[in-house]
Amino acid sequence: MTTIVNHEVRLGARPVGLPKRTDWKFTEEPVREPREGEFLVKVSHISLDPAMRGWMNEGKSYIRPVEIGEVMRAGAAGKVMSSKHKDFKEGDLVAGSFGVQEYAISDGKGVRKVDTRFAPLPVYLSTLGMPGMTAYFGLLDIGKPQPGQTVVVSGAAGAVGSVVGQIAKIKGCRAIGIAGGEDKCRFVTEKLKFDACIDYKAGDVKAALKKHCPDGIDVYFDNVGGDILDAALARLAMRARIVICGAISQYNATAPMKGPSNYMSLLVNRASMTGMVVFDYADRYAEAAREMAGWIAAGKLVSKEDVVEGGIDAFPEVLLKLFRGENLGKLVLKVVD
Amino acid sequence: MTTIVNHEVRLGARPVGLPKRTDWKFTEEPVREPREGEFLVKVSHISLDPAMRGWMNEGKSYIRPVEIGEVMRAGAAGKVMSSKHKDFKEGDLVAGSFGVQEYAISDGKGVRKVDTRFAPLPVYLSTLGMPGMTAYFGLLDIGKPQPGQTVVVSGAAGAVGSVVGQIAKIKGCRAIGIAGGEDKCRFVTEKLKFDACIDYKAGDVKAALKKHCPDGIDVYFDNVGGDILDAALARLAMRARIVICGAISQYNATAPMKGPSNYMSLLVNRASMTGMVVFDYADRYAEAAREMAGWIAAGKLVSKEDVVEGGIDAFPEVLLKLFRGENLGKLVLKVVD
Repeated sequence: MTTIVNHEVRLGARPVGLPKRTDWKFTEEPVREPREGEFLVKVSHISLDPAMRGWMNEGKSYIRPVEIGEVMRAGAAGKVMSSKHKDFKEGDLVAGSFGVQEYAISDGKGVRKVDTRFAPLPVYLSTLGMPGMTAYFGLLDIGKPQPGQTVVVSGAAGAVGSVVGQIAKIKGCRAIGIAGGEDKCRFVTEKLKFDACIDYKAGDVKAALKKHCPDGIDVYFDNVGGDILDAALARLAMRARIVICGAISQYNATAPMKGPSNYMSLLVNRASMTGMVVFDYADRYAEAAREMAGWIAAGKLVSKEDVVEGGIDAFPEVLLKLFRGENLGKLVLKVVD
Repeated sequence: MTTIVNHEVRLGARPVGLPKRTDWKFTEEPVREPREGEFLVKVSHISLDPAMRGWMNEGKSYIRPVEIGEVMRAGAAGKVMSSKHKDFKEGDLVAGSFGVQEYAISDGKGVRKVDTRFAPLPVYLSTLGMPGMTAYFGLLDIGKPQPGQTVVVSGAAGAVGSVVGQIAKIKGCRAIGIAGGEDKCRFVTEKLKFDACIDYKAGDVKAALKKHCPDGIDVYFDNVGGDILDAALARLAMRARIVICGAISQYNATAPMKGPSNYMSLLVNRASMTGMVVFDYADRYAEAAREMAGWIAAGKLVSKEDVVEGGIDAFPEVLLKLFRGENLGKLVLKVVD
């Protein structure tokens, strides 16, 4: 039997600011046989997420940091090549935390089988994967939108934000997106059918929120932090809910994090700001995936993936597209066909 | 009949930074007779509150600003001198929003009768008044402390904070105060029986919180904002609740408000930060006052007032004691005996 060689991307150094190519270490090693209770996956698609930047830092967070020398953590999808696990067999398509590498050995923990008759494989890293779950539970469980209310979401053309606004519409709310650039905004209103999209690169977000949210913001779903969070705080409706999902504008900052100066608007408006981590909802993923698959099938929910070719060697550069705001929808790195 | 002369303190200018004496206008005018449905109050005690600083600013807030030339808004207590109101008679002791003046004409709206057999008059501006209501509803309704949990409160020697920690103890929690100076901290632990009090003037609040909250902070009741809010954020327990009640450290700032840089701790810890305004609980004040009067009578709750003599002419200087942190307990200006 020919030895299969695995190529891995490992964390080489803790980045300061934007992760550089030299912060990564590229290694190769032979793939070992799966042992009893394990299976071997050939990875075809890797999920690139803003949260990855946080995993590269030291210090207490909601998940342990990736260690120096460790294969970079990543959600991924692929095909089972061989198996000694009772629940997975050769040929199964699977999604799980396989890391930035071409092959992964798994014990099945956190791995789910996917069915490409319902949706193409990348959708399982997107709307039917973590970003979709994040949008679903963050909006519905924390944001608690009521029909007729106004939901604003930043990163509206991204993996999470695009789903948040569409679910808001399904639930009878007005959905206002915030995104960077005309193309993204057009996509958000024309393809995703948000009521409006504010181009934060084009000017005054605060004024635009005033225009598009005449009765204030009932739910603000924040993926970006920084000045945009402050602009949303300044426009809250009474008893508004802010969902803190991410702060991509701050992840690569080398200066101290910018706190929201307008947080006293929480008092004025009796509003709340609550953090969410999708992993807390693991036992309800199936429920959410079922409902969202139904919406996709019914044409009510568009899942948009931005699949970039290039294999794992391209990982460092492709990851930066996220922080430069160059992706439209869920950024996925294609490893093999 | 002799004409009675009223002395009033009116807002003369919108202050920049700390309110100066020249920001106030002192006027006098004859007291008119109460009309049908009105009564005349001779004010004996005026409540001085950090919130007053906010009322002096222009702009949308939870209450309309005091206008230039208007008598400064203030809670106060006094005695009914004459009445054409069916519910109030001469000699009644009353508390209400009478303003910074010696006499007030009232139609009875928001005025309640008080009984000095249960507690001295200043207590009705303190634990049995707005500060007490703020502590009670903010802690219990927003903070939702559970027995055995750790409650941290800033401004712990002040009107609201002193009550928050004591109610936390009554509810079976650990209470940790944060206050400025040794004397205040001694008062908080010895007289109010908090488990500990951190002197923020003495050093590293973050390290002290780590020491006194080994399992993290379950409820943080914030009266001060600024760096102390950030230190508390850095020490949250999972699913912690932050009650945003005030931000006295920022009220006189001429630079932009300092937002809490550590707010992403809300995400890491699935925590929430919620604003509260006591007026929302008006229909439940009686319930809270009854329960707290019971605790006072049973010796479980100490109400501390810092009553300063001087009459309304002293108002500008006495108010500054709040912002200099010179008061111990509820700051009250005595107008007459």
